Amino acid sequence: MKLAKRMSQLKASEIREILKITERPEVISFAGGLPAPELFPIEEIKHINNLVLDEEGDKALQYTTTEGYQPLRNWIANRMNLRLGTKFDEDNILITHGSQQALDLAGKVFIDEDDIVVCECPTYLAAISAFKMFGAKFLEIPCDDDGMDMNALEEALKTNDRIKCMYVIPDFQNPTGRTWSLERRKKIAALSNQYQIPIIEDNPYGELRFEGEFLPSIASFDKEGYCMCTGTFSKTYCPGYRIGWIAAPKEITRQFVLVKQGSDLQCNTMSQIAIAKYLEHYDYDKHISKIRKVYLNRRNLAVETMEQYFPKSVVFTRPQGGLFAWVELPEHCNARDILVKSLEQNIAFVPGGSFFPNGGHENTFRINFSNMDEERIVDGLQRLGKILKENI
Amino acid sequence: MKLAKRMSQLKASEIREILKITERPEVISFAGGLPAPELFPIEEIKHINNLVLDEEGDKALQYTTTEGYQPLRNWIANRMNLRLGTKFDEDNILITHGSQQALDLAGKVFIDEDDIVVCECPTYLAAISAFKMFGAKFLEIPCDDDGMDMNALEEALKTNDRIKCMYVIPDFQNPTGRTWSLERRKKIAALSNQYQIPIIEDNPYGELRFEGEFLPSIASFDKEGYCMCTGTFSKTYCPGYRIGWIAAPKEITRQFVLVKQGSDLQCNTMSQIAIAKYLEHYDYDKHISKIRKVYLNRRNLAVETMEQYFPKSVVFTRPQGGLFAWVELPEHCNARDILVKSLEQNIAFVPGGSFFPNGGHENTFRINFSNMDEERIVDGLQRLGKILKENI
Repeated sequence: MKLAKRMSQLKASEIREILKITERPEVISFAGGLPAPELFPIEEIKHINNLVLDEEGDKALQYTTTEGYQPLRNWIANRMNLRLGTKFDEDNILITHGSQQALDLAGKVFIDEDDIVVCECPTYLAAISAFKMFGAKFLEIPCDDDGMDMNALEEALKTNDRIKCMYVIPDFQNPTGRTWSLERRKKIAALSNQYQIPIIEDNPYGELRFEGEFLPSIASFDKEGYCMCTGTFSKTYCPGYRIGWIAAPKEITRQFVLVKQGSDLQCNTMSQIAIAKYLEHYDYDKHISKIRKVYLNRRNLAVETMEQYFPKSVVFTRPQGGLFAWVELPEHCNARDILVKSLEQNIAFVPGGSFFPNGGHENTFRINFSNMDEERIVDGLQRLGKILKENI
Repeated sequence: MKLAKRMSQLKASEIREILKITERPEVISFAGGLPAPELFPIEEIKHINNLVLDEEGDKALQYTTTEGYQPLRNWIANRMNLRLGTKFDEDNILITHGSQQALDLAGKVFIDEDDIVVCECPTYLAAISAFKMFGAKFLEIPCDDDGMDMNALEEALKTNDRIKCMYVIPDFQNPTGRTWSLERRKKIAALSNQYQIPIIEDNPYGELRFEGEFLPSIASFDKEGYCMCTGTFSKTYCPGYRIGWIAAPKEITRQFVLVKQGSDLQCNTMSQIAIAKYLEHYDYDKHISKIRKVYLNRRNLAVETMEQYFPKSVVFTRPQGGLFAWVELPEHCNARDILVKSLEQNIAFVPGGSFFPNGGHENTFRINFSNMDEERIVDGLQRLGKILKENI
């Protein structure tokens, strides 16, 4: 039987495959991107679910609009305006099935076969998969600790007329944990307006800042309506509900709504109403600050352990927020070989190669520090340090 | 800003636009495809949600596998085998975000630009939207009360080498309410095997049979692994949870899983576990038989009222199950004109033209009978009968 051409390039997510191995309880896994389940507000969720079912069960279990639950969209717009300096209202917001779906919908809205997506080097693995489905090619722009190299970006925009959109994660990037400077945010928004190329700003981790000041989003510097921005409740509330969003200029939001209609009609009604009611009844900021404290502590332990136990030739990032740190081994090393050795000792991580759409950079890997207790973080990274010392 | 080419052909779902009008409480709407909310098992859902959060809240709120919750997939396979005569196990099943997502994923897996999808005439509107996103063209095969014309289908398969897949809804079809005979089911499975063209059998309504005997699914006659079949809990449990599935030969299921990874990672974990626990703790068949009784009564009232009050030149179906009946006006009539008149009198339905991917047939419309109480069904159809008499 003949499949679509796009299927020939598709392969299973390496992360999801590694995650299957890490289901064994003896494995210390730095591989996933999972939030800490002990921080889920289970009792509050139970209370709210009962409230919603008592008060409006017939509505919560029924179909709803494609756009999503209006009070939730309204809350999201206000939150973004407060945190990120944007000027959105509910009509800018579409609720999506996790922010991953926002990327799939963006692929549908923007990408034709062989269009080029400009991205960071490295970039988020599942964004590569999402855009590839629509035939995207990728142009990776070099990055440093302040974000994307703006000269290299401008050169690319000037010279390449197949560039269709830009995809960036300016806050605590997955996989590197890096955060863009204010300057670069302003600059990319200006370039987007000048060259009329839309930006998809992916922001799943922005709320999880441990230190330093919150920075405005790229979308907040958009004057001409070229920037859109995703968000999610997966890292600050729970991932199991699959509730995220995309905020965009209204005429673009309408295109996303049309595309979502054909993709899956709408998001889970009950989960949308339940989150909106939670935000009304509970102190979300207090809840997030609890998460931040735990993750800060885990980041500190991870970074300190790597400093102490990793070989000196290994460099890594010290993220100001989010879930991930990024490790670079000397150039001759291959992180996949290291992974084989470390899985033998029940330690897992994700090799970095998959985060580069055009390949290479096999000497890198990603460390997640949010999902494990403090003791196992220290134990795991000490043992990983030993493996590195023996193998590089 | 340049959008993808596919966006130029996209238009808002006429149904969803009409549904916005019908939110006014004074409107008697035959337009939607909504289940009756008074039949949602709200108290049972509340009990189960509390149980799940108490027993395994951290798991229910966390990420899970793309394939979906294993006990739920196992239940679905067994149910299909029992009801539809298939031989599936859990590895044949992928949980999707409503059965609508199964159609989107099928588009991704099978359809290249300008590939032809064979479909019934008319067919499900949102399947047209889903497949169009990937550049599908449609070949409509004539149908009668026993399903698709098998001679016309075979002729098409023989002569057209751009046919990539077949899309059919053999049980209580949306929009016509028609059900395929056993013979035609066997025949299309055989043709699919002979011409090596996959079938996507969409089955959202199969459980809602009011009268007559359950028929085996097309997939149950598949010998060579060319048939897949969707299902959903939207019509028998609640649509708000957005939990559906696709059952397919295992190597095809694996392709669907890959594609779902990039689309939205996975379905709502909590909703999947909650449905599985509901099925374990409650009598699902008893619940469905309650729904069937109510809908049978509403179908009877709808058909009787149309028989009595519609002009004799109007013909309509008498569905053995599902949510919809189909009305054909004399050929010179346009149902969109009738809709304008009937909206003035606060009565809504969906004109049939949108259900024909290649246009025409503007003398048809669809009637939903599941979502309204008995009195309003009779009142609405009596008044619609008057409007028809005055306008055709």
